[in-house]
Amino acid sequence: MSRQQRQTLDDLLRHGPLDLGGDVAEQRAVFHDMMTSLPLPPDVSTTAGELGGVPVVTVETPANDPATVLLYLHGGAYAIGSAADAAGLAGDVARRTGARAVCVDYRLAPENPYPAAVDDALAVYRALLDDGVPSSAIAFVGESAGGGLAVATLVAAKDAGLPQPSSAAVFSPWADLSVSGNSVVGKAAVDPALTPEGLRTRARDYLRDTDPATPHASPVFADLTGLVPLLIQVGSHEILLDDAVRLAARAAEHDVHVELQVWPQVPHVFQAFAVMLDEADAALQAAAAFTRAHWATTDATDEELPASKESVVPQ
Amino acid sequence: MSRQQRQTLDDLLRHGPLDLGGDVAEQRAVFHDMMTSLPLPPDVSTTAGELGGVPVVTVETPANDPATVLLYLHGGAYAIGSAADAAGLAGDVARRTGARAVCVDYRLAPENPYPAAVDDALAVYRALLDDGVPSSAIAFVGESAGGGLAVATLVAAKDAGLPQPSSAAVFSPWADLSVSGNSVVGKAAVDPALTPEGLRTRARDYLRDTDPATPHASPVFADLTGLVPLLIQVGSHEILLDDAVRLAARAAEHDVHVELQVWPQVPHVFQAFAVMLDEADAALQAAAAFTRAHWATTDATDEELPASKESVVPQ
Repeated sequence: MSRQQRQTLDDLLRHGPLDLGGDVAEQRAVFHDMMTSLPLPPDVSTTAGELGGVPVVTVETPANDPATVLLYLHGGAYAIGSAADAAGLAGDVARRTGARAVCVDYRLAPENPYPAAVDDALAVYRALLDDGVPSSAIAFVGESAGGGLAVATLVAAKDAGLPQPSSAAVFSPWADLSVSGNSVVGKAAVDPALTPEGLRTRARDYLRDTDPATPHASPVFADLTGLVPLLIQVGSHEILLDDAVRLAARAAEHDVHVELQVWPQVPHVFQAFAVMLDEADAALQAAAAFTRAHWATTDATDEELPASKESVVPQ
Repeated sequence: MSRQQRQTLDDLLRHGPLDLGGDVAEQRAVFHDMMTSLPLPPDVSTTAGELGGVPVVTVETPANDPATVLLYLHGGAYAIGSAADAAGLAGDVARRTGARAVCVDYRLAPENPYPAAVDDALAVYRALLDDGVPSSAIAFVGESAGGGLAVATLVAAKDAGLPQPSSAAVFSPWADLSVSGNSVVGKAAVDPALTPEGLRTRARDYLRDTDPATPHASPVFADLTGLVPLLIQVGSHEILLDDAVRLAARAAEHDVHVELQVWPQVPHVFQAFAVMLDEADAALQAAAAFTRAHWATTDATDEELPASKESVVPQ
């Protein structure tokens, strides 16, 4: 069935109303309608709140273990999307992982350019730690811009002297705001959702005068040494394929435990389409297994941290 | 324990007797002694035989499912090593996967340069198919040069109009005989086992006058379109790190289902040291799970093959 599923999804996205580089107010509404077109499953609850001065939406299912937290960063090219819009996918990840998802409503560009998003994500992480949640019970999850932001926040946490969480899983991360990967051209014809022009418009909104190679904006250029285990998932039919590949290459170079999983012929953040696509279900299961495995082995992982990092691991 | 395990293994390799670029006859003996220094577990049996005119050693454990086969390609830079030398690691993979391993004694350089190794691996694969083993019940496994050879053999099988096996898992593949990855320099200081000079010596032996960019010699330069799911494992303390990363990048570009797993601070083919290294055990479990998962879904996978390939899938 899967080839037909992929074709159906491709058609849906190719002829859909989202124009990534279009007017921000208009595209936020279109994105909201897209992301909330399916009702949440009846057992998924969402609770609006605030952590560290940043609005969040906590997404839960009844079976979630209260001791573990996903810090969830939504997609939308830093200009579109919201914590509430992400509740469907975040709830699916929460269910499979057995942890509640704290979705961060980080400030968006162009109103709030870099580093607002990183500051907000880090503030929520710091607030969780200050509330007594052990770093080892927190995993980061992010999709698209939120995937790049998740890795940028790992780097920012390291630079701020905070402990790392247990792991991070990122779906189709946008990790290079200079939009310079080979796949930007090479995969443009087969990508049904994203365009190079759209990404460049949104990168200008987010960066303003900031250098696109700034590590906290584009983690493919960051020093990733000391980061926790990283799972990177991507479809082969997307212009951001090389962001995922280069992020994995960089992490490997810097001695990070990294897994890259490439699913052929599926689009950007295909995990959001688990109701219609077998690959999405398989990828989400793999992401949940990865996250759970690193919760399970956190004691061993802490023991193995390089000496330079052990000093910032909380007692 | 793992940091201490890694240090012990690093010391062992760094001060070990193997000199990859040294005299071939001498290094074959050194490698043989290294690889057979531990006796095989008592329940592992090895049987010498021949398939397609090529000598093989079949490695089995009592619980192996007779319906499934690993086509196993040993390491040794195309000049060193043998099917029998690989029995320890092949037996471990066989046990975890639940399949017997057919280890190929492909001809070695410098006596038998490229394409002897590819011809021999393909001949054994063809003989298995001719013997009535379904392609879907065969998985390729290879380490080091055997990892590159496994992928080269997938490409050669495609080019010969043979069906693909179910999957391939490769450990620290040597996939670029031009020895031009960034890690050749970048990881030289931390690699306790391999040297750029050693690889270049062995590449000259294997290639003679063949262009190092020949796809069946260096699959990082091959058209990988249509290949089966590929698992690539590598340590971050090896000069071949970039071979693994670039092979994954190439497979992704060509719409192959590919997973890259990078274990930090472990050396070349660390999987061979499962008795002393936790990462080796974890990696072998992951490789076995990957192989078994693709056996389990072979019917679905065949259905999903692109139209251009379905015509060569046997009935």
